[in-house]
Amino acid sequence: MYRSAVDLNCDMGEGFGHWSYGEAPDEELMKIISSANVACGFHAGDPTIMDRMARMCAEHGVGLGAHPAYNDLQGFGRRAIDASHEELVNDILYQVGALREFGRRHGVRLQHVKPHGALYMTAARDAEFSRRICDALGRSAPDVFLYCMQASETRRVAQESGRPVIREFYADRDYGDDGLIVFARKMRRLDPQEMAQKCLRACREGKVTTVTGKELTVEFESICFHSDTPGALEIGTAVRAALTGAGVTIAPPSTLDVAA
Amino acid sequence: MYRSAVDLNCDMGEGFGHWSYGEAPDEELMKIISSANVACGFHAGDPTIMDRMARMCAEHGVGLGAHPAYNDLQGFGRRAIDASHEELVNDILYQVGALREFGRRHGVRLQHVKPHGALYMTAARDAEFSRRICDALGRSAPDVFLYCMQASETRRVAQESGRPVIREFYADRDYGDDGLIVFARKMRRLDPQEMAQKCLRACREGKVTTVTGKELTVEFESICFHSDTPGALEIGTAVRAALTGAGVTIAPPSTLDVAA
Amino acid sequence: MYRSAVDLNCDMGEGFGHWSYGEAPDEELMKIISSANVACGFHAGDPTIMDRMARMCAEHGVGLGAHPAYNDLQGFGRRAIDASHEELVNDILYQVGALREFGRRHGVRLQHVKPHGALYMTAARDAEFSRRICDALGRSAPDVFLYCMQASETRRVAQESGRPVIREFYADRDYGDDGLIVFARKMRRLDPQEMAQKCLRACREGKVTTVTGKELTVEFESICFHSDTPGALEIGTAVRAALTGAGVTIAPPSTLDVAA
Amino acid sequence: MYRSAVDLNCDMGEGFGHWSYGEAPDEELMKIISSANVACGFHAGDPTIMDRMARMCAEHGVGLGAHPAYNDLQGFGRRAIDASHEELVNDILYQVGALREFGRRHGVRLQHVKPHGALYMTAARDAEFSRRICDALGRSAPDVFLYCMQASETRRVAQESGRPVIREFYADRDYGDDGLIVFARKMRRLDPQEMAQKCLRACREGKVTTVTGKELTVEFESICFHSDTPGALEIGTAVRAALTGAGVTIAPPSTLDVAA
Repeated sequence: MYRSAVDLNCDMGEGFGHWSYGEAPDEELMKIISSANVACGFHAGDPTIMDRMARMCAEHGVGLGAHPAYNDLQGFGRRAIDASHEELVNDILYQVGALREFGRRHGVRLQHVKPHGALYMTAARDAEFSRRICDALGRSAPDVFLYCMQASETRRVAQESGRPVIREFYADRDYGDDGLIVFARKMRRLDPQEMAQKCLRACREGKVTTVTGKELTVEFESICFHSDTPGALEIGTAVRAALTGAGVTIAPPSTLDVAA
Repeated sequence: MYRSAVDLNCDMGEGFGHWSYGEAPDEELMKIISSANVACGFHAGDPTIMDRMARMCAEHGVGLGAHPAYNDLQGFGRRAIDASHEELVNDILYQVGALREFGRRHGVRLQHVKPHGALYMTAARDAEFSRRICDALGRSAPDVFLYCMQASETRRVAQESGRPVIREFYADRDYGDDGLIVFARKMRRLDPQEMAQKCLRACREGKVTTVTGKELTVEFESICFHSDTPGALEIGTAVRAALTGAGVTIAPPSTLDVAA
Repeated sequence: MYRSAVDLNCDMGEGFGHWSYGEAPDEELMKIISSANVACGFHAGDPTIMDRMARMCAEHGVGLGAHPAYNDLQGFGRRAIDASHEELVNDILYQVGALREFGRRHGVRLQHVKPHGALYMTAARDAEFSRRICDALGRSAPDVFLYCMQASETRRVAQESGRPVIREFYADRDYGDDGLIVFARKMRRLDPQEMAQKCLRACREGKVTTVTGKELTVEFESICFHSDTPGALEIGTAVRAALTGAGVTIAPPSTLDVAA
Repeated sequence: MYRSAVDLNCDMGEGFGHWSYGEAPDEELMKIISSANVACGFHAGDPTIMDRMARMCAEHGVGLGAHPAYNDLQGFGRRAIDASHEELVNDILYQVGALREFGRRHGVRLQHVKPHGALYMTAARDAEFSRRICDALGRSAPDVFLYCMQASETRRVAQESGRPVIREFYADRDYGDDGLIVFARKMRRLDPQEMAQKCLRACREGKVTTVTGKELTVEFESICFHSDTPGALEIGTAVRAALTGAGVTIAPPSTLDVAA
């Protein structure tokens, strides 16, 4: 078996003020996942939502992660901003620190950082930017996991710099032959059982079938699904049931020896 | 002598993006003060400015303080927002945490929290709100000083709850007979030597003359002047020279035994 | 019959970016109402949503109204900000103008202005502020209706200044004996037929029963229901059906001779 | 003489809240220029500043222009945001409309639109985006001048679509051999007399010397200088004196027959 223990992470707290986001309530998702990527106010989330997320992570033993983004509330962090590396790194530290404080309030250590949306993709492609992120976190948060894709500059650079990384497998995204996920602007409703079997096979064999039908080897320590994918709660529930039913432990990286 | 050692604090980093604020450069002020109240992005300050302030605090041995405010960039945090205590406390934690991360990056512990502008005044008058602040910080930042006025609910409540407080004396504000500072919307240019003598007398005798000419007893561990007061740099320089010339040590509370 | 013709208005376009608000889609509500209060970006709404609302108003012959608010996206405009009258009036003009431009694009004149949430209530209580609003609109928008409550300073002052006003009757709010609506933080699900009968009686007799069971005389030219009231679409549909079934015409004030 | 009458435009109102920008006060600049590009709140400017600018344009007979920008207060509109054309066009209309309302209040028609900073450059390079801007303004603001560079897609597309354009000559920027201005991140202090002679020669001969010493033909109806260029007031004053001394009339395009 490729992975007998795996992390299950999901973006959380992506409402803002009176607005909520996604059809799956955060309360229900918290019972399923082992790690939460919490919006930090730049693409979604506000201090009161962040406080609630940190409290819920404490209650459910879920790993608390910062999900920093471009400063783009209107575009949900999906629109890159042509800012300097220095500005972006400082934006990340700002958001990481803000979330960390709510963790301190509720007795939870910050477990990980996972850039959101366009910022995740910018870092994935830009080695120099990834290096700047690792340098900055190296001083302020030396022991925090960085979530990334196997096929990313972020992963390569982070490992070079000694930063512990967690590589992600995407339950609710299709893979291309190049190992990258296929971008979909509007998500269709996916079949939870199909997603669950895809994840189970990935854990057992370390393989996934691409959109062209080829077999692809995948390397990961965490499975990601998105709270705004239609049917997110059903997908997460099915994935958890399939994995635990097959003897795969679901637990946050901070409690398992899974870091890459 | 009432105080042979005193802290000298100033609001810092109150620009935003391409805008700067006040006529005194932060670089020069840092050489004079012992504690900096750093804007945290809600009334002024942005992540890049905050990073620079934290670095400068590290370089100059200046105590790093968070200066959280109402979420009011346009009004410079001088306009109260009718938000719930819960929302405001979460806004404070968010800002405190954001600044603390830059402190971690530069190897500086967060020394203190001082609410800004209208938020400082709201807390000063509202015991329940002050209690909520102390409760929240009690968990996330138990060892951090809270700056306040002697004549405030914040001071009273904080001391009840065991929080270390630092009481402020205002170099560049007039005092009324009630011990409160007299509000001035537009600051006139003050005489630095006069301000310096006022501070020296306050340290020596624990007294200040009110606007009506009465003698008022003052209790404080820190002297505050404002970077946006016209002539701020000259005032700060004169105060420092007068105090050190008279044998009064200027140092941050974290290095002195001055907490109330 | 007190009113043989009446306007039916609803708050519209209260999403922001990727977030939507209320359970009733704007597309469906547009078919029912005769006037839309369109969020202008300060409490909700963004330029792309505003453009869509203006286009839909053009398509459905719905009166286009600006729904300016306190600059409070996080609090949905329900938290008053202690800003000066001058600042608030300028905030209103800014929002009114922004919406008007989308109206111009789609060939729709701005029909009305209705302050939102806390700003509506602040104006209702504050004659001087209402006067400042009327003065400013008197120059930039002399022919635009101002929506308000009969029991408000806004109504009194506006009529004194010659501004055409539209007084509102609330379909989905309870009335107190003082003629003011009873504030409810969390709306319960209301019975659409009951709401419809309440509106029909108000049109026929100019009366409503208060929460204590008393009879209250009401004066109005428009019926308001809220898109975020649970069951809003059903309420609006039932009100429209009951009124038109009883021979009451529903039409925007710009096409009827209904101004107070 | 190439131009016996020319417009003189400057970016105005680029403070925000308590922050001011540039060393030249808006009051003084208003006496020199004939057209003002007024910040509309997205990169700078707030409703109260915009109101003041519109009032000052009315008082001084200065042409009122909207200066819409990317939604980037922190970056002063100098950082492009990867938003869709539709979003950006709606952002522009929003800002144009907001400013126009203050013009209505003070009895001034909107004279022109000039995108700011990175938005100006994005439009200059992108014909399709420029077309979208012209289409949208074609409906909401058919009679408003669009300011642009001769060497830009914006100019080409606007003229194709029948939009009246005003082409700019830059007093305080150097020209390259390709007719484009040479980007300078940090402006050095320029010699006002030299700038004045450069402008005078451009008006007389329609020529400018490039950074490599070549002669370049320039076509323009307006001369632009920037309020944040060090010495802006002296430059503007010198340019005005040199031109009027040589018999060149300075007046807004709305009062001259200068449109391209």
